[in-house]
Amino acid sequence: MMAEKREMSGGADEGNTGMRTAETLLRLVPMGLCIAALVVMLKNSQTNDFGSLSYSNLGAFRYLVHANGICAGYSLLSAVVAAVPRPSTMSRAWTFFLLDQILTYIILTAGAISTEVVYLAYMGDEAVTWSVACGSYGSFCRRAVAAIAVTFGVVFCYAVLSLISSYRLFSKYDAPVDHTAKGIELGGTTAYRG
Amino acid sequence: MMAEKREMSGGADEGNTGMRTAETLLRLVPMGLCIAALVVMLKNSQTNDFGSLSYSNLGAFRYLVHANGICAGYSLLSAVVAAVPRPSTMSRAWTFFLLDQILTYIILTAGAISTEVVYLAYMGDEAVTWSVACGSYGSFCRRAVAAIAVTFGVVFCYAVLSLISSYRLFSKYDAPVDHTAKGIELGGTTAYRG
Repeated sequence: MMAEKREMSGGADEGNTGMRTAETLLRLVPMGLCIAALVVMLKNSQTNDFGSLSYSNLGAFRYLVHANGICAGYSLLSAVVAAVPRPSTMSRAWTFFLLDQILTYIILTAGAISTEVVYLAYMGDEAVTWSVACGSYGSFCRRAVAAIAVTFGVVFCYAVLSLISSYRLFSKYDAPVDHTAKGIELGGTTAYRG
Repeated sequence: MMAEKREMSGGADEGNTGMRTAETLLRLVPMGLCIAALVVMLKNSQTNDFGSLSYSNLGAFRYLVHANGICAGYSLLSAVVAAVPRPSTMSRAWTFFLLDQILTYIILTAGAISTEVVYLAYMGDEAVTWSVACGSYGSFCRRAVAAIAVTFGVVFCYAVLSLISSYRLFSKYDAPVDHTAKGIELGGTTAYRG
């Protein structure tokens, strides 16, 4: 019995180390992507005969830069915490879960509103007399698109990280529905079964 | 032993019915909010001396209308499915989890990009010569803000629903980390403990 448990725990330990490494890497990848998007957007400015345009002239792009900065910092910090081998506590799992969710929402909204601004800059909008800015600032728009594309890579990573951290958190809890289903089966008081 | 199980299952059954009712209601609330936001935005148009402006002139608002429509339909459907008392299967939990996540992302991006467009309409942007549209279309902008505020109510509901559906899904799985922690304790092969 003890030997069995030890063997099982050895296997689980190896699997766990692998999972921990995978999670740490999955947290370092968005860090790299965030920094890339940040640098591309920060250096994004264009001056021509019509005037000059930089990322800081558009609120959405400022938000993108801030979101990527926060995300890069959090990714590094959480990668370090995730890399340390210690038993996961409830409060730690909740912290990871909530912060991962919030970061996913922040980076997703940053990508979404920047996409909308680039869309408006490329297409313009006649009804509200917004001109096609990318006609005059073509290379600015292309670099903005590149930064946004990289940001959506971060969004994908964080969607996966959210899944992992909710698995880590909620797998600690008992399933309420299945217990009832078993209880119904055993008690035989109700007729329905899926 | 059997009596205990029956008693326990009875309690769990009541708790489960309560939880099912709560979840069904939590799915009907965003349905109502979605329809409200949809109607406000659909009827949103203004004609004055400068011209006429309707929601369909702005891509972000068209997306908001579609997102709210899809969300209202899914909320109703999922409320009906959630109301049916039957044991939750793995595939059903996965379906709920994935669809809730996707809907959260869709409605969040709809709210975010509409907020950005309303922000641009109120503030304008000199650098890209986008004029302050809300100067001429004040009541259009106010109704758009109302629709967006309601949409963020939907976002909040869906954030909670995502949490519930990930709990329902992942509580069916075993916690990998805790098992290892116990294994380490029993096996005594490693020294660290949290």
